[in-house]
Amino acid sequence: MPEIRKDPVFGRWVIIASERSLRPNEFRSAAEVHSCPFCAGNEELTPPAIYSLPGEGGGWRLRVVRNKYPALVSEGVTGSSRDGIYDKMDGMGFHEVVIETPDHSRRLDEMPVESIADVVKTFVLRVKDIKKDPRIKYVMIFKNHGRNAGASLLHPHSQIIDMPMAPLRVMQEIDGAADYHRERGTCVFCDIAREEAAFKRRVVADNRSFIAVTPYASRFSFETWILPKRHMSHFEDMPEGEALDLAGVLKTTLGKLNVSLPDLSYNLIVHTMPVQEPEAAHYHWHIEIMPKLTHVAGFEWGTGFYINTVSPEDAADTLNSGRKYKI
Amino acid sequence: MPEIRKDPVFGRWVIIASERSLRPNEFRSAAEVHSCPFCAGNEELTPPAIYSLPGEGGGWRLRVVRNKYPALVSEGVTGSSRDGIYDKMDGMGFHEVVIETPDHSRRLDEMPVESIADVVKTFVLRVKDIKKDPRIKYVMIFKNHGRNAGASLLHPHSQIIDMPMAPLRVMQEIDGAADYHRERGTCVFCDIAREEAAFKRRVVADNRSFIAVTPYASRFSFETWILPKRHMSHFEDMPEGEALDLAGVLKTTLGKLNVSLPDLSYNLIVHTMPVQEPEAAHYHWHIEIMPKLTHVAGFEWGTGFYINTVSPEDAADTLNSGRKYKI
Repeated sequence: MPEIRKDPVFGRWVIIASERSLRPNEFRSAAEVHSCPFCAGNEELTPPAIYSLPGEGGGWRLRVVRNKYPALVSEGVTGSSRDGIYDKMDGMGFHEVVIETPDHSRRLDEMPVESIADVVKTFVLRVKDIKKDPRIKYVMIFKNHGRNAGASLLHPHSQIIDMPMAPLRVMQEIDGAADYHRERGTCVFCDIAREEAAFKRRVVADNRSFIAVTPYASRFSFETWILPKRHMSHFEDMPEGEALDLAGVLKTTLGKLNVSLPDLSYNLIVHTMPVQEPEAAHYHWHIEIMPKLTHVAGFEWGTGFYINTVSPEDAADTLNSGRKYKI
Repeated sequence: MPEIRKDPVFGRWVIIASERSLRPNEFRSAAEVHSCPFCAGNEELTPPAIYSLPGEGGGWRLRVVRNKYPALVSEGVTGSSRDGIYDKMDGMGFHEVVIETPDHSRRLDEMPVESIADVVKTFVLRVKDIKKDPRIKYVMIFKNHGRNAGASLLHPHSQIIDMPMAPLRVMQEIDGAADYHRERGTCVFCDIAREEAAFKRRVVADNRSFIAVTPYASRFSFETWILPKRHMSHFEDMPEGEALDLAGVLKTTLGKLNVSLPDLSYNLIVHTMPVQEPEAAHYHWHIEIMPKLTHVAGFEWGTGFYINTVSPEDAADTLNSGRKYKI
């Protein structure tokens, strides 16, 4: 059983999941991998589908399965207990994989916009289903693409981790947004979306519902955020009609990143309110995309102290010009 | 001039330093590098020494120079100014490099303990000198070793960055420790040092002044902290007699990490009080060492949500047994 341990200084929870080191790793040795568990025809290599969308010829075009090497497991209780001077809790939760396509080598941004919208709508449906379990306080939706971003399999997929507590950084983000709202009476993310639309130099993609920007205080070179233009604290409250707009902005943004940064590895993370909390005026869900450029992988990670050698204005300019970035 | 930009949500400061992307990178292409600027005989390739220790035959055994590609520059003012809805300040500060040895290929833990103590004493002297400038609020001492840790040069060296503000994570750490002190009346780091000495299973090195442990809620596999046993909030207040003890624990700890994790890359960071603050009962300086194992480089970095697949007890056991860790 994985354990969730609390750091006594920060109050930060860390999942200690030794079983996960057993998962396959395509990047490690091609010879070790006989066949991809996410490809069509290999369905027996994964747990049964929780959800799927029908594809051509009786097959599927998208599948959701439980992660075979979960960071958290469905058994266990959610209360914390003492361990010496420390606190821990059982590693209770769910860990799902969204297999975005049966096609092993088609990147998300290469898929038709309708297929990307299927992925977005699936995320929404899964969160709505998961939040019925009152033990689940936070749903983390993320995508690791490429070796440098920690992906262990090449086949396009995303992950959903359902947790009994909200990660510390999420709470700090919500607290920071609440402070801003108290001081100025507006939502900081609404203000950012408006400011960036007017300033233009940091905009990477834009449609009626969403704007993608390289944020003003970008921690990482080519960091990109996608913000809904309309205020909404919970991702899962996105109306169905906006899923296609989000898919369009995702396709444009990831497409531009892939052109300027060949062999791109990235982490994509949906930031949203804890699922059991009501709609809030001060918080606004959004997506953060963090490219992992090997040569800048520095000590910044994990220290909270960041040095970024590409200004967000230069990053947006490079992305919008279609130029390759010379590393 | 680098810019320091403030994230409006977190209040996190980010250094935007485009000039730094010009620095040489030995790992990128060996052919591009004609000679190492840190080697004996190449002193003209670096700015003049701020400080040095004499070596054999009229040479030096340690040198401190300004970083040729600084993240911050000595000109500039320290007040913040508005930029649209955002805040920024000039990238004022100092950025020094401690060249730990004239020998290009001798790792820090392979050096005699007296030479490691020279490095430690040099850190202390530099901080004492730097803090005389009232504009400098925080001194970050760190070491990036190896490609995966973001080092751009192989030659053993550390860095010192002197900043006009304390990084957000440092302030959060100090706030967390202050909360603990208010609730329990003790220093959390004193409690950790005592708890770990009694529990033993997470101890990696130990002498009369310092203890090295794999922390209870380790974010990263083989993460290791070195804690002074005696309470002290400021690194630079370490008595000279303890420098040799710290050097001994550093040698043992880095030595064990290098045995169990061949070709180890790591980041080593000194966590300490902002230099202009008085001694505090609730905060306790320490060192954090974060090995960068490529296969675990995941989305955890920068999100504040961590999954660690090697428990700290297993990590300490591996390190103490001298076994190689099978990645």
